[in-house]
Amino acid sequence: MPDRSTPSDDKPIDLPQPAVGRLSLYYRELHRLLESQQGGVNSQQLGKLVNVSPAVVRRDLSALGTIGRRGVGYDIARLIERIGDVLGSGMQWKVVLVGVGSLGDALLRYRGFERLGFQLSAAFDNAANRIGSTIAGVRVLDAALIESFLAAEPAELAILAVPAEFAADIADRLVGCKINGILNFAPTTLKLPPKVAVVNVDLASELQRLAFAIQTQK
Amino acid sequence: MPDRSTPSDDKPIDLPQPAVGRLSLYYRELHRLLESQQGGVNSQQLGKLVNVSPAVVRRDLSALGTIGRRGVGYDIARLIERIGDVLGSGMQWKVVLVGVGSLGDALLRYRGFERLGFQLSAAFDNAANRIGSTIAGVRVLDAALIESFLAAEPAELAILAVPAEFAADIADRLVGCKINGILNFAPTTLKLPPKVAVVNVDLASELQRLAFAIQTQK
Repeated sequence: MPDRSTPSDDKPIDLPQPAVGRLSLYYRELHRLLESQQGGVNSQQLGKLVNVSPAVVRRDLSALGTIGRRGVGYDIARLIERIGDVLGSGMQWKVVLVGVGSLGDALLRYRGFERLGFQLSAAFDNAANRIGSTIAGVRVLDAALIESFLAAEPAELAILAVPAEFAADIADRLVGCKINGILNFAPTTLKLPPKVAVVNVDLASELQRLAFAIQTQK
Repeated sequence: MPDRSTPSDDKPIDLPQPAVGRLSLYYRELHRLLESQQGGVNSQQLGKLVNVSPAVVRRDLSALGTIGRRGVGYDIARLIERIGDVLGSGMQWKVVLVGVGSLGDALLRYRGFERLGFQLSAAFDNAANRIGSTIAGVRVLDAALIESFLAAEPAELAILAVPAEFAADIADRLVGCKINGILNFAPTTLKLPPKVAVVNVDLASELQRLAFAIQTQK
């Protein structure tokens, strides 16, 4: 066994956001290494794949109780399992998507979710020409059915890809249906009870961050 | 004049990434306030709109040399101008997009970019059925033409929405065409010269961050 791990337990580990982001990247690259038939990886190799130093890799992984062996490194399969446990990817998460415009359509077709344990159970829209269609295996239902669908088939997470002006109303309805977390692509800040987790992805803001990085480098 | 500003100069301001992200959100909400005909805003109102404390708003804005007046607040139009200067949104940025799959298609149709000064000059793909089409006013050209197009019409930024296996090659070609920054949606880490800025958006990682947040809240 090329690495030693402390026994995993059910207590959640408290990790800062940047570490969670890095774990998610290690996880992605480890899957790729596993597909290419490799058995072990060291902190230098893993660091190189995600552009961080070997010391950061070792610190992140030791926070999970996983310690690489000098000259041998980490067992890839065990590391995937451990990171998956911590990130919740070992679990199956039910996800609904609201808003099947071009972005929602792209998200339904995105194949990266399922591999990580996220299962899209339904999509919702209010446009007659979208309702009733099936996109990448997911049914598009009338947004009026959000409550009745989730009462019958509860989901933990929702992806919100509606225009900004509808986001607050839809988010409130989802929270009323016991959704615990929202991945929000609508360019607006949602006001939700503290028990509901939100991750915002604002595409224009990301391009602005890039433009800022370029300006300061000049 | 409801606020005092230090004269803007051309030296870039050094801001940490989270502050840049917040400025981008203030900027978005200020545009909305301006549309609703408001003239002034105070740090409490602005903080409420983006879920941060008034003290954080005041600190972020004073880093730009912008100080609100007690009881009056900030002049919205001037604040937009100042944040836009800092974020580079006052500038016009030429942007090309590579990869017109469903995500690339959604990004071309996304209306948030133009308002912030990002102008999509062309999109590139290698699929015969996409080449020659026009999406949201942007021509889709053969990816073989990236070099000749950018030689004739230089761009500063590129949006990369190709499958992971093509990302490294396309990124190298874009850097060879003097692209200064890449917004990377491909689920892979790019290795680029340090002078090239990269912002990565990994959709599956965002959902993983959300799942992690829920687990630790339970």
